[in-house]
Amino acid sequence: MQDTIRAAIVGISGYTGAELARLLPDHPRLELTVATSRDNEGKHLQDLFPALRGTDQGELRISAPDTEEIASRCDIAFLAVPNGAAMEMAALLLDKGIKVVDLSADFRLREDKIYTYWYGMEHTRTELLQEAVYGLPELYADRIAGARLVANPGCYPTSIILGLYPALAEGLIHPQGLILDSKSGASGAGKKIKPDFLFCEIENDFRPYGLGGIHRHTPEIEQELSGVAGRDLTVSFNPHLLPVDRGILSTMYADPAVGTDMEEIAAVYSRYYREKGWVRALPGGEIPRLASVRGSMYCDIGVLQDRRSGKMIVISAIDNLCRGASGQALANANLMLGLDMGAGLAPRTV
Amino acid sequence: MQDTIRAAIVGISGYTGAELARLLPDHPRLELTVATSRDNEGKHLQDLFPALRGTDQGELRISAPDTEEIASRCDIAFLAVPNGAAMEMAALLLDKGIKVVDLSADFRLREDKIYTYWYGMEHTRTELLQEAVYGLPELYADRIAGARLVANPGCYPTSIILGLYPALAEGLIHPQGLILDSKSGASGAGKKIKPDFLFCEIENDFRPYGLGGIHRHTPEIEQELSGVAGRDLTVSFNPHLLPVDRGILSTMYADPAVGTDMEEIAAVYSRYYREKGWVRALPGGEIPRLASVRGSMYCDIGVLQDRRSGKMIVISAIDNLCRGASGQALANANLMLGLDMGAGLAPRTV
Amino acid sequence: MQDTIRAAIVGISGYTGAELARLLPDHPRLELTVATSRDNEGKHLQDLFPALRGTDQGELRISAPDTEEIASRCDIAFLAVPNGAAMEMAALLLDKGIKVVDLSADFRLREDKIYTYWYGMEHTRTELLQEAVYGLPELYADRIAGARLVANPGCYPTSIILGLYPALAEGLIHPQGLILDSKSGASGAGKKIKPDFLFCEIENDFRPYGLGGIHRHTPEIEQELSGVAGRDLTVSFNPHLLPVDRGILSTMYADPAVGTDMEEIAAVYSRYYREKGWVRALPGGEIPRLASVRGSMYCDIGVLQDRRSGKMIVISAIDNLCRGASGQALANANLMLGLDMGAGLAPRTV
Amino acid sequence: MQDTIRAAIVGISGYTGAELARLLPDHPRLELTVATSRDNEGKHLQDLFPALRGTDQGELRISAPDTEEIASRCDIAFLAVPNGAAMEMAALLLDKGIKVVDLSADFRLREDKIYTYWYGMEHTRTELLQEAVYGLPELYADRIAGARLVANPGCYPTSIILGLYPALAEGLIHPQGLILDSKSGASGAGKKIKPDFLFCEIENDFRPYGLGGIHRHTPEIEQELSGVAGRDLTVSFNPHLLPVDRGILSTMYADPAVGTDMEEIAAVYSRYYREKGWVRALPGGEIPRLASVRGSMYCDIGVLQDRRSGKMIVISAIDNLCRGASGQALANANLMLGLDMGAGLAPRTV
Repeated sequence: MQDTIRAAIVGISGYTGAELARLLPDHPRLELTVATSRDNEGKHLQDLFPALRGTDQGELRISAPDTEEIASRCDIAFLAVPNGAAMEMAALLLDKGIKVVDLSADFRLREDKIYTYWYGMEHTRTELLQEAVYGLPELYADRIAGARLVANPGCYPTSIILGLYPALAEGLIHPQGLILDSKSGASGAGKKIKPDFLFCEIENDFRPYGLGGIHRHTPEIEQELSGVAGRDLTVSFNPHLLPVDRGILSTMYADPAVGTDMEEIAAVYSRYYREKGWVRALPGGEIPRLASVRGSMYCDIGVLQDRRSGKMIVISAIDNLCRGASGQALANANLMLGLDMGAGLAPRTV
Repeated sequence: MQDTIRAAIVGISGYTGAELARLLPDHPRLELTVATSRDNEGKHLQDLFPALRGTDQGELRISAPDTEEIASRCDIAFLAVPNGAAMEMAALLLDKGIKVVDLSADFRLREDKIYTYWYGMEHTRTELLQEAVYGLPELYADRIAGARLVANPGCYPTSIILGLYPALAEGLIHPQGLILDSKSGASGAGKKIKPDFLFCEIENDFRPYGLGGIHRHTPEIEQELSGVAGRDLTVSFNPHLLPVDRGILSTMYADPAVGTDMEEIAAVYSRYYREKGWVRALPGGEIPRLASVRGSMYCDIGVLQDRRSGKMIVISAIDNLCRGASGQALANANLMLGLDMGAGLAPRTV
Repeated sequence: MQDTIRAAIVGISGYTGAELARLLPDHPRLELTVATSRDNEGKHLQDLFPALRGTDQGELRISAPDTEEIASRCDIAFLAVPNGAAMEMAALLLDKGIKVVDLSADFRLREDKIYTYWYGMEHTRTELLQEAVYGLPELYADRIAGARLVANPGCYPTSIILGLYPALAEGLIHPQGLILDSKSGASGAGKKIKPDFLFCEIENDFRPYGLGGIHRHTPEIEQELSGVAGRDLTVSFNPHLLPVDRGILSTMYADPAVGTDMEEIAAVYSRYYREKGWVRALPGGEIPRLASVRGSMYCDIGVLQDRRSGKMIVISAIDNLCRGASGQALANANLMLGLDMGAGLAPRTV
Repeated sequence: MQDTIRAAIVGISGYTGAELARLLPDHPRLELTVATSRDNEGKHLQDLFPALRGTDQGELRISAPDTEEIASRCDIAFLAVPNGAAMEMAALLLDKGIKVVDLSADFRLREDKIYTYWYGMEHTRTELLQEAVYGLPELYADRIAGARLVANPGCYPTSIILGLYPALAEGLIHPQGLILDSKSGASGAGKKIKPDFLFCEIENDFRPYGLGGIHRHTPEIEQELSGVAGRDLTVSFNPHLLPVDRGILSTMYADPAVGTDMEEIAAVYSRYYREKGWVRALPGGEIPRLASVRGSMYCDIGVLQDRRSGKMIVISAIDNLCRGASGQALANANLMLGLDMGAGLAPRTV
């Protein structure tokens, strides 16, 4: 019997905190010892999440966030707090020797000016921007394993980077002119109490939002795809809101490089993702759908060529809360702690 | 008090037949006198559609299709039968002097070889292909008004052609390289009894299908957009299935022509659609959504330019059953009968 | 051409205000001249309700509520404001000679002590409690026609009272022991910005709430059913929240009186509702469902007897926003104004 | 490392077969070695269930049902075949020494005449009716542990029997006059390809069906509740169809026995379910909801007394596919095989 590793979830009341709380009980080594939420201090976890009633974890009492307490009672912390609130919290915890997986956007962008432009605030811990590792396990497992601080990717970027990585890395598509048409379930917006997210405003509806290069995930997508392609690129990223609770499906359009054929592309995708991680490069013609990845770490990818226009079409599907946020955070924690990357992340869907 | 005009719905049991049955009772002049369905002969309409119980129309008895009877009891017929079944039926009815609005695909494509390629059967009434008028009222009202036979457009083509018509007609975008990412509610598939369309297979899911130029609406879209652009073009048309019952939202990507600016485009859209029909060119920055057009004839269109890539993005939203099928069929009938185009089609949404 | 009658909607931003705005454009005589909302003063209606864009009504400018202005510019006012806010507003408008249909609960309960007990505040206009007429057209059309002030019924009470009225009035069931198991769509809660009503909290869920006699509609149901039965009765009223936007279906259990048989009951229901209103007493064995009444004024009622227990089961289905609130308010206004009860309320469903 | 136990799923193509396929990969001892489906012979499991792609189990090849093969390659078989098809299959497998968990209704009713009355066919293996154990683990764990053949309970009966068991067993309620108002997700109907179960027929709808004592689960409920109460009883069981994929919530109404108070009842429920199984007797006033049990084995139960009528109201919530079918089958298999009852059934919800 191996030792338990103690974990904190800072900001348990939102959807990513809740998803971590759903996943952690199945983990063979990690134990949730601290869960914080200012608004719910003193409650038990099961008061917030009735699904946890009757589990050991459901009995855990929620506390107000306190870095001293977290440092004394935990080995690793998951930050599920708003953008801007994470940067100081992360710095304080790192100073006390705690590893940190940050689910906010605070450490995803390498340049503080870009952060300030898109998030409208100063970055007060720029010294950590270079240290933070972008936590996409299929791409950066080695660096994540050596990191103190991991910036957990955004949900849209996860679906898009995994979808285009092999093609861009191998030069099989033109890096410019990428059109990224993404569709997300409502939990992607977090548990924001706004009229737009009421049931009656989403049921029976479907709508784009943040079109044309104004969504905050745009610079993250461009930074990472540029890194993979080895040159600066810009994208047209266009998100839409689906009447489902979970899931992101991205339909991506690219121009194939001269001489590329689809069998070659399929072989490359298959090879890139065979050994590691949760990407399933679907065999010829099979198309991803949200239902197949619900609740899991899988990223299903289908690639095909448009018969008439010649465009290459890549479709990727993930669960935005599990793969696109909290499950990925757990995979990153596993790597940082020297555990098996997939510990506690067995496939499951409902 | 003006005379009543008598109408038949041939094939009442599917979703487009049902939508016609929903709309006709509000029409000031048209009266449903014949409704046919082989499988439901002898039942009353209200047995099929409990929502109609207690209305005069609900008492109508369903008959088996019989062109003699339709000819003797009706002035106009709506054909809501499968592709391939409509062509002979239409020919027989026209011979007897009945006007026909065909909701199938049988008369939408002007070339019989293209029909045969996409629909897998011979066209046995090619002499009517040139006579049939493509029933998109905002574009072809005058020709529809003089027609005996109208080919009612497909639902996806309606959303796409209305979305691109002003820009293509004015040469504001390049006609090649169009990417059409469309999302449709489940009624678009018709009332097919297949496992894929069971509630549990669609709820909580979102999936693409018919990607990459293989959906049957592709040639219809290309035919009509080519006509508008004045030159042959091909498109990348990619449909997706939404977990809603009604609605199509298309997100379309085009390269602006040299010198095009967005204010000019907005002004053109506004001018093209101001006088006639149900297209609402939304003012700057407002984005269409399905909820705003549900149950109505409206087609909401938003146009914007991607900040980073420069692409022009056009979004259109329609109700696939009303605007994309049966409501449009009724507007076409109004024009063919010399009535006000909007008779019986007051805005309504739920 | 008859004169227009001018109407105000006071409190347009909630779901009942929105439903009135959906219905009024189809009314042959009523014209919306004032729409108020403190939070949206200065906006146009179409800014709040994009579905109204392009209609005359969409151009109406929203004002802050001002009884002077309403009195000078309207003949009748619909109050769609919170409980407690309506009573003074109604009194001021009545003083100025304006007829009032109050969609709040302020004038539904005849005894102010009961109001205070259930709604937690004093009633400051008790003098109007006896004058106000309970606005259920099938029961009280004559009195409504003569009223200055109509208390528009709650949504649950509408579904329940219509369901039990003939049986109680004729003594066909025991008035005690009634079990009322009601299920409502999410719009019944109004447009409250609470976490419980977020999309992700309702989709994939179903839950009871306010069980066991604590829901505020309980005293209204008991008051009205007692009146019909001619004796005081108490009920067990138990609401549940459905993952749909619209609709209430109530399943009601009662003990038949000695000697009652189901054919007699069916005949009584059919007779009671044949001549007037929108209740459809379904023929033998047909069971109501929400889809059949969506968007309409219909109340579908089915009655059957449990084979094993002998219980009488009554099922009623309504659209909570149309029949259970705003459509019913419009029917009441029609009666108060001497118009045809059904003016502007043609059947429609989506 | 302990030996693997080999299992067959006979009839994998329906929803209960699929749910077993979802659950089995997490089981520490059971391995799926045979999966049968006449219509899908030769396919791999992942062709039917794309969610399984990339798992060992996904590679399993589906075979046609063959009792010889099952006997030679398995230790236990789950029968997920239609009513009537299971009885012979079970007998043949038992003869060959295989343990059987039957998910059909074939062995649930102890009297063959009652089976014939409700299911419309002769029972050809009546000799097994007395041997079969009704597989509700919280009630019958010991007998299940000794069984060769377990009749897995129906989904509605599971929700109802667990809800009423302590109260009936302790005589805290009158056994007659029970009203059982149940609401189920659409997967409860199985993967039937009927128009009624198409997405567009269920979305935006809610409807009762099989009311008044005609649903086939009625005799099963009465048999089991009679057994618990120690006397024959009849019930009024009334199911409704919810627009969700999974879950059953039953609202049950009973008359308390003389002198019963709610604290006593709460204590009894808590005591009955504390030690064993997955029932969570919720603390005072907390009300079950489907979201809290989704995908899990939990049965959440709330009990309260109606303030006005005095009725006792019991609410229970389960996942119909997991707790109400396949998960329960797995728990029964665990008991029959001498394993921990909860093996492979860790709590999980999405």
